[in-house]
Amino acid sequence: MTVTSSARTTSPTAVVGMVGGGQLARMTQQAAIALGIELHVLTPADTDPAIRAGAQFLAGQPDDLDALVALASSTDVVTFDHEHVPNRHLRALVEAGYAVRPDPAAKLLAQDKGVARQVLGGAGFAVPAFEEVAPGDAAAVARFADAHGWPVVIKAPTGGYDGRGVFVVDGPSDLARQDGLDSLDRWLLEEHVPIRTELAVLVARRPSGQVVTYPVVETVQRDGICHELVMPARIDAAVADRAAALGTAIAERIGATGMLAVELFVTADGDLVVNELAARPHNSGHATIDASVTSQFENHLRAVLDWPLGATTQLAPAAATVNLLGPDHPVDLSSTVPSALGEPTLHLHLYGKSMSPGRKVGHVTVLAHDAESALATARAAAAAVLAP
Amino acid sequence: MTVTSSARTTSPTAVVGMVGGGQLARMTQQAAIALGIELHVLTPADTDPAIRAGAQFLAGQPDDLDALVALASSTDVVTFDHEHVPNRHLRALVEAGYAVRPDPAAKLLAQDKGVARQVLGGAGFAVPAFEEVAPGDAAAVARFADAHGWPVVIKAPTGGYDGRGVFVVDGPSDLARQDGLDSLDRWLLEEHVPIRTELAVLVARRPSGQVVTYPVVETVQRDGICHELVMPARIDAAVADRAAALGTAIAERIGATGMLAVELFVTADGDLVVNELAARPHNSGHATIDASVTSQFENHLRAVLDWPLGATTQLAPAAATVNLLGPDHPVDLSSTVPSALGEPTLHLHLYGKSMSPGRKVGHVTVLAHDAESALATARAAAAAVLAP
Repeated sequence: MTVTSSARTTSPTAVVGMVGGGQLARMTQQAAIALGIELHVLTPADTDPAIRAGAQFLAGQPDDLDALVALASSTDVVTFDHEHVPNRHLRALVEAGYAVRPDPAAKLLAQDKGVARQVLGGAGFAVPAFEEVAPGDAAAVARFADAHGWPVVIKAPTGGYDGRGVFVVDGPSDLARQDGLDSLDRWLLEEHVPIRTELAVLVARRPSGQVVTYPVVETVQRDGICHELVMPARIDAAVADRAAALGTAIAERIGATGMLAVELFVTADGDLVVNELAARPHNSGHATIDASVTSQFENHLRAVLDWPLGATTQLAPAAATVNLLGPDHPVDLSSTVPSALGEPTLHLHLYGKSMSPGRKVGHVTVLAHDAESALATARAAAAAVLAP
Repeated sequence: MTVTSSARTTSPTAVVGMVGGGQLARMTQQAAIALGIELHVLTPADTDPAIRAGAQFLAGQPDDLDALVALASSTDVVTFDHEHVPNRHLRALVEAGYAVRPDPAAKLLAQDKGVARQVLGGAGFAVPAFEEVAPGDAAAVARFADAHGWPVVIKAPTGGYDGRGVFVVDGPSDLARQDGLDSLDRWLLEEHVPIRTELAVLVARRPSGQVVTYPVVETVQRDGICHELVMPARIDAAVADRAAALGTAIAERIGATGMLAVELFVTADGDLVVNELAARPHNSGHATIDASVTSQFENHLRAVLDWPLGATTQLAPAAATVNLLGPDHPVDLSSTVPSALGEPTLHLHLYGKSMSPGRKVGHVTVLAHDAESALATARAAAAAVLAP
């Protein structure tokens, strides 16, 4: 049997480099296939979710400048599946003439919560009261609490995700009881904002300036991990409009390119306060795959290539997404998945990752006439996928 | 740099074998990714569209029984991207205990138009008058024309696709003028049916009996090649209901499994006549990717695995698909694609194939409030993708 490497193949429409090969890169790869885009992924593991979905594998660590240069020099533009790339390396790539999107300055706001607070607060956006203090400085924490009240939130400005690196301290005596605080290199103090609802505004922006936003998403977090999404959020239209305008304004102010997720708190008083930024496709946008004319993954690719952006129109009145987090018991997906698909409206997205407790291994999305029925169906389906 | 072949990967939910690696296999692979299904493709060319989208490559010809056994023995079920597999090899696989879906008897109806006419006509379904005669038997053609009138359609019962192997003979003197007729091994004569509209009914059926149908599709053929689709077809609801019932009845009668596309003629009198069958995902179902809750490719996978079928509900009032057929001039997709995406509602699907005149290299789908605006937008976008 001779293998034919046919001459009848075509060049890709573009070649995009992505740092990181997790589920966000996997879903970007799914969008890339239809557009004729070749996605090259820099990751140490050739079994990563994106590689298993057919992305080109470039072996390397995200903090290895040589590997980043190899990625940049073989692709049209470099972008990201995560935040864990040294910002100085990104600046080195730009200085060497490579296209990096988002650019290092915009990416830094997603990498460093302290910088984000300073830049966004300084630009007049509503952020929680904050102060960076020396790690372990209990007196500084007490002074901050005098001004803003207990509890005080202490965050690692960099490296945290899914609730890691966030500590809620109820009072002076609680400081010593929080396991892990002493391992932080930096302490970012924040006032504890009473939250009515958490929102995410998903914005796609091209280098040449075009911006589109998706319907505002309502996110439900547990222990800092996003569990559920509802699109559009169940909030007043006026609040949704303010949130979308805020997301757009931030994307333009920081010069974001690609997808930008702006996480917002709706306070008990109905005010909008900026929580965090993610400068890449984001978990809060997963419903866009099945519920929107153009998914966040396709719009991320189009945006970083400076191609025209796709419509963000929603295809059904309500969409709900429930993340699949590994349970404590073993799961045999080859038997639970067919059973879960007994719900005919289910959109299942598995990431090709093995189960471990708390690990995001997939998500389900359901479209319906109202948020409550979409959520109820999605929750039941998620439970069926993760059944023992 | 050490490559980590992480132990943190999971087993697939199922492993499906597909004979053929073209665009149908590629879009099946796209559906397989989200479901955690591993798709293994048997094809001689490692650059085939499905392999470029990440399907596992098994080198081999579709008429090589050893290669088919290798595919069957490494997968849970064998299915197809095309019809060009010797039916005796499929029977050999079944005799050896492998799951082949559709089964050889159902597949034969898509492989041999003469058998299809006999079986469906014999079962009481409306088919054009037909007769198989010895190749070159002009007297038999004249007798057939005496009974059914000129023109007479002469078809190759096997191996034809995209209009190849179909000859419309206007009268006795036209027989000698038709290039290619003398190369046919068999002649299937058919009456020439005056056609008002061509329809396709897309049916998914599981081995255990569940059947779903999509909204009936209207197809526009030119020179035997499908150029455009409109879903739902612009026909009376009563005709659509009859067409859907006919598709379901045929799928059940022949025991189809997986997707079955039933191509129908609506005659000048408003009657429905069965044209051809395709026992696999089909070009006429491409709009289901973007316009339906569950695409034909996902439902094909679910059906051949005997998993519950997904909803076929349409997400917008109208959808139109226009095939991208290679033009006579060169096309630089890296510049035409960004330009075409200036239409924000466009869904672009490229197959990773090089251009040659008449070759299907992709398709575009547009959803809209009515068929005419969906078609107009899709036609303009297709022209933009294929611009010189």
